[in-house]
This record gives sequence, structure tokens and C-alpha cells, in this order.
Amino acid sequence: MSPLELLKAEVCQANRDLVRHGLVTLTWGNVSGLSSDRTCFVIKPSGVAYEALSPDDMVAVARDGRVIEGSLRPSIDTPIHAWLYRAFPAIGGIAHTHSPYATMFAQARREIPCLGTTHADHFASAIPVTRALTPDEVASDYEDNTGRVIVERFGSIDPVAIPGVLVAGHAPFAWGPDAAGSLENAVAMEAIARMAHGTLALGGTLTLEPYILAKHHERKHGARAYYGQPPLP
Amino acid sequence: MSPLELLKAEVCQANRDLVRHGLVTLTWGNVSGLSSDRTCFVIKPSGVAYEALSPDDMVAVARDGRVIEGSLRPSIDTPIHAWLYRAFPAIGGIAHTHSPYATMFAQARREIPCLGTTHADHFASAIPVTRALTPDEVASDYEDNTGRVIVERFGSIDPVAIPGVLVAGHAPFAWGPDAAGSLENAVAMEAIARMAHGTLALGGTLTLEPYILAKHHERKHGARAYYGQPPLP
Amino acid sequence: MSPLELLKAEVCQANRDLVRHGLVTLTWGNVSGLSSDRTCFVIKPSGVAYEALSPDDMVAVARDGRVIEGSLRPSIDTPIHAWLYRAFPAIGGIAHTHSPYATMFAQARREIPCLGTTHADHFASAIPVTRALTPDEVASDYEDNTGRVIVERFGSIDPVAIPGVLVAGHAPFAWGPDAAGSLENAVAMEAIARMAHGTLALGGTLTLEPYILAKHHERKHGARAYYGQPPLP
Amino acid sequence: MSPLELLKAEVCQANRDLVRHGLVTLTWGNVSGLSSDRTCFVIKPSGVAYEALSPDDMVAVARDGRVIEGSLRPSIDTPIHAWLYRAFPAIGGIAHTHSPYATMFAQARREIPCLGTTHADHFASAIPVTRALTPDEVASDYEDNTGRVIVERFGSIDPVAIPGVLVAGHAPFAWGPDAAGSLENAVAMEAIARMAHGTLALGGTLTLEPYILAKHHERKHGARAYYGQPPLP
Repeated sequence: MSPLELLKAEVCQANRDLVRHGLVTLTWGNVSGLSSDRTCFVIKPSGVAYEALSPDDMVAVARDGRVIEGSLRPSIDTPIHAWLYRAFPAIGGIAHTHSPYATMFAQARREIPCLGTTHADHFASAIPVTRALTPDEVASDYEDNTGRVIVERFGSIDPVAIPGVLVAGHAPFAWGPDAAGSLENAVAMEAIARMAHGTLALGGTLTLEPYILAKHHERKHGARAYYGQPPLP
Repeated sequence: MSPLELLKAEVCQANRDLVRHGLVTLTWGNVSGLSSDRTCFVIKPSGVAYEALSPDDMVAVARDGRVIEGSLRPSIDTPIHAWLYRAFPAIGGIAHTHSPYATMFAQARREIPCLGTTHADHFASAIPVTRALTPDEVASDYEDNTGRVIVERFGSIDPVAIPGVLVAGHAPFAWGPDAAGSLENAVAMEAIARMAHGTLALGGTLTLEPYILAKHHERKHGARAYYGQPPLP
Repeated sequence: MSPLELLKAEVCQANRDLVRHGLVTLTWGNVSGLSSDRTCFVIKPSGVAYEALSPDDMVAVARDGRVIEGSLRPSIDTPIHAWLYRAFPAIGGIAHTHSPYATMFAQARREIPCLGTTHADHFASAIPVTRALTPDEVASDYEDNTGRVIVERFGSIDPVAIPGVLVAGHAPFAWGPDAAGSLENAVAMEAIARMAHGTLALGGTLTLEPYILAKHHERKHGARAYYGQPPLP
Repeated sequence: MSPLELLKAEVCQANRDLVRHGLVTLTWGNVSGLSSDRTCFVIKPSGVAYEALSPDDMVAVARDGRVIEGSLRPSIDTPIHAWLYRAFPAIGGIAHTHSPYATMFAQARREIPCLGTTHADHFASAIPVTRALTPDEVASDYEDNTGRVIVERFGSIDPVAIPGVLVAGHAPFAWGPDAAGSLENAVAMEAIARMAHGTLALGGTLTLEPYILAKHHERKHGARAYYGQPPLP
């Protein structure tokens, strides 16, 4: 298989895994993955059922959002993916879903506060919410402006430390080193959102002590991480 | 297969898919589909388990609600389906369920407000609730009057833009271009209701900006829709 | 198969179906069924996993609660089943679970109010809660007294119109014409409890209009019921 | 199979069963089991997916936390398991998860009150929460200090009567006579937490009468227990 064929297979699998992880209803979600030379990315076609997807259905798109290969229309959210790949050079995969609990926070326009170590294991602080788009931003180039507003929100935030965002009134985006890694962060964000929702219902509003938060994030993602198995030599 | 046999197979499948989508408990739900000449519709028999349904069990009913073919009694909700087909000429399928979150709103007699783009992708504004029937309307022709009250509620509402309703104290009905399309709207309504329920629990009562709502609905359903794949030539 | 062997097979299947309907965790639930001559009933053995149950493991018990056949200990709740069979001559099956939403109401010691037609289709009014047992009633013959307190609560209530109860601080019992019928009422009670829980969270406290409640219950269970298929001649 | 091989197979199965019981997301959970001579325990390797686990992947660890056999790194929570085995001589298995409802209580830093008999059947009173660790306790030997703080919390509590704990801001630990028994208590704790969460939402704050609590716990775990089947002779 060529590198592009391999990427299509990976991205197809990550899209199908959205269903296995219970993150999507109908066709409300899409995953993309960046080529290793960072010149293009591969994304789900728009409005196609997950169980019907094959690698050949995936659409290859340049960094500026133009389709470069594929017979189907790419996801309607393609300009958002393109913005994120251009703005965040360290990422290689993006997962967008309407997973229920993360979407509840997006709809309530509340960030997801860090209420426990599960959150700290994946996100180094609260998961932020974007501002709403203006009427002008919606009237022309809506999807492109949605990407721009996410990048604006991350002005001083490290997108590797906080690998996801809530788009106000819409739903979450998560990202990672590749398509599978972005899916993993989407799974983590949904579980974290669900537990935050239920913790708030119990009156639990105390955010995790900053020194515990830092410890959990660093033992898994820091320079001297010791979670999991050491990388192969 | 004759057109009627094809329709029975489609409607049977849509009824069985109620279970796959987690929309029904016991036998609490039914789907119907209209014939292409709009002279009759096919509906689930009353009180039969979904896993036991075969296309031959489906009942064909005239637009006035009289059974025209089939050895089983049709769904007890048949007069409601008949009312909707007579009043809404653009629809070709109807799905009735007691799906839990939509039913919670119906029982609370609250419309489902549009709190996000997921809602806007499927329903062009809040999902309305009917008024309760009067004692007289319940005493004679209860099911017929339930259909009449839904149609009354849609006086100035476009049933294509808002393809569903909550019957006060009862449960939701959704509709669409055919049986499968009505099921899709029933799935969407339940997911939207669940997310609205959880958003309200977070104190999120801000409805979606009208210009974002319109954009999302039009990019999927408007004259210049660009969601999904273009229709085959 | 002898009538008793048939009854054991039916009761075994109903116990295994508790899992399929998502009503039980670990071994927290049991179903029994009465013999057609009403001299004995068959019940699940205590503490045995559902997937390991075979009809031969079922225990036959006389109406006074004494084991009459079977090598395993019967369910610890056997005296409660015996009380209900003795007090409610119209019933032929009993299902006890700790299904989550019904148990939440039992723990909150709140009856399940009739908030919609789903409830009315199965229960003719609110599902009642027992009083707590006294220290003396717990100290001697605890299980027997639990049965007695349920029967006391039904003093003026028709157990056919209201086929279930919440034991205060404990969990629900449901019953019906046979083991499968009691399971169906347990499934309905859990779905009703879940929807009532979510309706109350929306501020929905309006109980269903009595004339709608009566209509729904009678069209399914009354002398002139027209829900479902007519009985075979 | 040698005793150690048998133990590895048991512990591997208990880890895989975390998924079957719906207790884990991604790799957020681990189960261990103690050798019959209490000299070492076997635990899941860190960060490995459950579906990929085989008995040979399990890691054997001495009571002081040093690895004595296995090619993979043990769970990052190994020092916590080691503390519990050293401090609680009656236990032989430990299950740690981030199961959602128990974690909500841990994040809200609220004990799980005993609101019903389901709780009493497994835990003889409220399930306690630890204190938060200090900055110094986090800075050096964080995992070791987490174990120490659990043991500190159980100063005057019998860990057999209360086979589990909530670590503040983190998640639950449960234990039992062996790996499978600890998993059973983790399943029970999650179900109890879910029902407590929903009971509190209904305004149900009345804890179970102490004499009913004692009765339920003793009929299942006391010297004259009569729940389940008698032990084989």
C-alpha cells in the first residue's frame, strides 16, 4: 500500500470506531488524519453512514481545503480541520463528534472544569469554549470562520496540553498525534464531560488541586512520564 | 415484488430498526409508510413484538383509516397516522415512539428549545407540544382527536421544517419523506431531547442564535444545501 | 414434559430474561411462577448467576413457603412471593429486581406519580410505596414481614390494576398473570420510573388528566379493550 | 499450571471482565490478586488494552512493590495495591476503576451514603472518601502516599465490612477475598453510586434505618448468613 492508501485505511478505521465507542448518532461526526509530510489530510465523506465506509471513500484534501483526490464530497467540516492543521503544527489527527455530554457543555457554553484526575490525565486544565460567531462570520465562509474562531480561542493555550475544544452552541473537536490519537481524546473528553456533569449535580464544584493536576498530567505526558510501557528502542 | 409488497418490506424494516436505535421498550412504537400514489399507507400491527414481525404482518390502511389489506389489527395509533397523511401532503412516513427523553419533555409539557446546531440540523425551531385533549375529545374518537389536535397545533407551522411534535402527556411523533426518513427524525429528536435535558441541568437556557440556526438548517435542507452527497443525476 | 417441568422452564427463561432487559446487576433479582392449580410456585435459587441457570435448578415451593422440590436453596425473598400469591388470587407470576430507576424512587420513599400515558397503559394510578418495617418486624421473620407489609399497603388497592409496588428503602416488586407477564410489568415499571425521574428534573409535576389515564388503561385492560390482537377463539 | 500461572489467568480474566461490566473507558482500571501464601501479587501491566491482555502479560510484584516477574511495567497504581495488601490482611484481590458514578462522588468529595438495602447487602455503612494529599505527599512518592492515605482513612473501619473507598478527586478502589471478589464489589459500588446519585436528585436523603442495614448485611455476610447456597462440605 502507498502511504496515502495506508492513511486512508487508518482514517476509515478511526471513523468506524466512532460507532464502537458510542460517540455518534446517525452521521454526526468525522475523523481526519494528516499525511506524514503534512501536505494533505484525509477525511470522511459528507453524510455517508459509518457501516458503509471503505478506505476508497475517504477524501484527500490539501492544507488549504481543496480536494485533491476522491470522488465524494468531503465532510462539511473540512475547512475547520484545515484551519487546525495549519495553526497547530504538532497535531496529526482530528475527531469531531456531537457526543452527548461534551455537547451539553458546548450548548450551555460552559467550559468543562477539571474536577478530577481523569481529566488531568488527558487535559492539562479546563476544556475551553469558543465565542459565538457574529452574523457576518456566519453569512460568509461559516465553516472557515468556525476554524478561525477555534484558533483564536487557543491564542495562549498549548493545543498539545489541551487537545480539544467546545464550539459554542455546537459540539466538541478533539485532536492528537494521529487519527487514532484524536479519537482517544474524543473518547476521554466525553467520559470526562459525563463525570463532570454528574459531579456538578452532586454540588461538587471544587476543581482539582493544581499540584495534583500537574502531577497526573506530567506522569503521563511530561518529559519523565512513567505511565504505560516505555517506547520501543 | 409489487409496489405494495415493497412498501410492506420497507415499513417492516423501519419498525425493526426502532429496536436497533434503542427507541422502544416492549411494543411501544410504530412506523408507517405511504404508498407512492398516496392512496393508502402501511403500518405495524398492534401489540406484536418487533423481532416477530415479517412484511406480511403489515397492515394496509386507506387514507380514511379503514383497513384494506392484512389479517391483523393495525396499530391503535392508526387514526393519528391517517390524520397526519391527510393534513401534511409533503410527508411519506411517520414514526411514533415513547423514546425516553422526548417523552420526558412531552410529560413535562415543555417544547424542546433549540439549544444547539444538532437541533438546527434537523428541526428549524423548537419542537412544539400539543394542548391536552378535553374530556369530550377523549370520550369519543380519542385517537382520531389526537391526530386532529396535532394538526391544529401545526396551524401556522411548516411540517417539513419541523418534522415532529410532542403530544402532551403522551410521547413524540416524527415524520419524513418515507418510513426510513421518519425513523431518522425520531432518532434525531431523541438525541436532541437528551442533550437539551442535560444542557438545561447545567443551567444552559440560551437558545441558539437565530442566524446560526438558519444557517445550519439551510446548509442541510435549503435550496442550496451542500451537506452530504449531491443527488444522483 | 410434566406441568411442573414446563413451569420450571418458563420461570428459568423469565429469570434469564431479566439480564436481556437490563434489569439486574450481579444476582439482584428473581422471578417466580405459580402452578395452574395454585398449590405451589417455582422460583430462582438464591445467589446463582443467571447465565448458569437451568430449569432443573429451579425450586418448587408450597404456598406456605416450604420447599417441596429442588436441591438448591430458594431465593431469600421466597416468603415475600408466598405472601403475594396467598393474598392476591388473580396473579400467577412475580418479578423482583433492583432495577435502578424504580429503586431510586423506593430509596427516596416516593411513589411513582402517573405523569403520562406510558404509565397509564400499565398501571391505573401512582405506584405506591410501603411503610418501613419496625425494628421488631425486622428482628424476627424479616422476609415474611416484608410480604405482609406489601399486602397491608394494598388494603384498598386492586393488585391487577396496579401490578407492582416499591418496598421502602429496598426495591420494586412487579406481578402479572404468569412469570413472563410479571417480567413485562417489571420492564414497564423501570421505563416509567426512568421517564418520571427525568420529567421531574424538567419541573414536570403535572399528573396525567384522570380521564386520559382512565382511557389509556381501559383501552388496553378494560372489558372492551382494543389494544393488541383479539384472543384466539 | 503452577499456582502463579493459575493466579495470572484469574487476574487476567478479572481485568478483561472490567470491560464486560462496563466499568472502564480506554485503559482506566486495573485488578490484582494475591498469592495464596501472601508473598506476592499479580497485576495488570500499565497502559495495555484489555482485549490484548493474555495471562503471560500479567506482572508479579512483591509485597513491597518490587517487580519479581514479568517483562512489562506493572500498573502505575501498583504501590497503592501493595499498601492495601500489607495493611488489610483479610483481603486477596483489589479492583481500581474510574467507573462513572463512583468517580462522580469521589470528585464531589462526598461519601456514598447508605440509602437502601442494595448498599447494605455489600457495604456495612457509607463508603468513605479519603482526604486530599498535601503538596509534599504529591511531590515525592505520590502513588505510595495515595495508598498510605487510604489506609489512614480506614483507621477504625473494618475493610471487610466496607470493601471499598473513594480517593478524593480521583476514583474508587474496591477489594475482596480474591480478584473476582474485588471485581464484584467494584460492580456493586458503581450500581450503588448510580442509584444514590438518582435518589439524591429526587430529594431522597433519608439513610436506611440502622436495624434494616444491619439485618441485610448480616443475612449475607454474618456468622449466620443465609443468602445464597451453603458452602460445599
